[in-house]
Amino acid sequence: MGQVIVDISTSLDGFVAGPNQSLDHPLGDGGGRLHDWAFALKAFRERHGMSGGETGPVNDLVEEALRSTGATVMGRRMYSGGEGPWEDDPNADGWWGEDPPFHHPVFVLTHHPREPAAKGGTTFTFVTEGIESALERAREAAGGKNVAIGGGADAIQQFLKAGLVDELQINVVPVLLGDGARLLDGLGPGDLELETTTVTESPAVTRLRFRVRT
Amino acid sequence: MGQVIVDISTSLDGFVAGPNQSLDHPLGDGGGRLHDWAFALKAFRERHGMSGGETGPVNDLVEEALRSTGATVMGRRMYSGGEGPWEDDPNADGWWGEDPPFHHPVFVLTHHPREPAAKGGTTFTFVTEGIESALERAREAAGGKNVAIGGGADAIQQFLKAGLVDELQINVVPVLLGDGARLLDGLGPGDLELETTTVTESPAVTRLRFRVRT
Repeated sequence: MGQVIVDISTSLDGFVAGPNQSLDHPLGDGGGRLHDWAFALKAFRERHGMSGGETGPVNDLVEEALRSTGATVMGRRMYSGGEGPWEDDPNADGWWGEDPPFHHPVFVLTHHPREPAAKGGTTFTFVTEGIESALERAREAAGGKNVAIGGGADAIQQFLKAGLVDELQINVVPVLLGDGARLLDGLGPGDLELETTTVTESPAVTRLRFRVRT
Repeated sequence: MGQVIVDISTSLDGFVAGPNQSLDHPLGDGGGRLHDWAFALKAFRERHGMSGGETGPVNDLVEEALRSTGATVMGRRMYSGGEGPWEDDPNADGWWGEDPPFHHPVFVLTHHPREPAAKGGTTFTFVTEGIESALERAREAAGGKNVAIGGGADAIQQFLKAGLVDELQINVVPVLLGDGARLLDGLGPGDLELETTTVTESPAVTRLRFRVRT
């Protein structure tokens, strides 16, 4: 059976998004800097239909992650673009555009039942029964590949607390955001025992990979 | 001239000490786990008069750091053992015992003027004129070697904000503390531009080294 993997970029001070998130600004002030390293890679550029890009050990890891992931679970805010009044609009359409980069089934945690939405090669299915149900459906859809818990911080914290994550991959970017959404907020020593498995770095990012001990 | 170096251990959630610090418990709940990796090394054991210990790339870095450091600056709390009522006792003697591990001049930031204290091969000098004065005196005492900014988080934040640090070495330990003193609290994107220089890891710790851009 596939693994359940959190693979997320944080600032050196531990934020996955900066302050002042909005629909036009879903990563908050400075949050875009957390993903520059990924957009520069050959693997990401290919996924977005562009040529060129950086190769090397970090790119190899991302290629492998893209290849081995069969489904993604994400929180409502990651689907619809940060915090804000549109969150309460059950039909808000999100910020992923006409060809979202997933190209596999995505399950969105929400309190609002709604019909699945297909865009490009990605289908978004809305799950109102909580994280375990979302994970079960994602596992089925992944057909033996891994399930990625995409974010945001809230969703990741719920999955970590429930002991449902096998691998935690934190991509530390050497910038400070100072405020925003912290990846590991609300978790403490009793919630998680980690074992460092691999560390892979480039000047732009250090990828720390941990196995979660069960 | 020597470099000004911050070399500090943090939990994966960014704390340098856990909650509930006290004089008998200066690193707070769980904070001792941040330093287990160091105590296991040959370099640290030698410095404390013990034989044996782990060797390898992380040990080599610590040996080099010990060899190249000529003076340390620390905050009053790091000298006297965490937060608490004893902080206001100008003669509180600290928790470093009869043979503190520094074996070079240490400058303690404080608001209480007091005579220097010599213990084993270490002299503690108390500086009431602020961080720039402490650094100037430490540079002189270091005789061309590096000056370490030892901690705690408050002192490190002051030095980082003032642009006085050349290298930031964060030793990330794969544990969560959940609460306590955060290394990078109160700092934001305008305070620090970092360039990753080296990453060195063992199962117990990942050492991320950054050059601070001026």
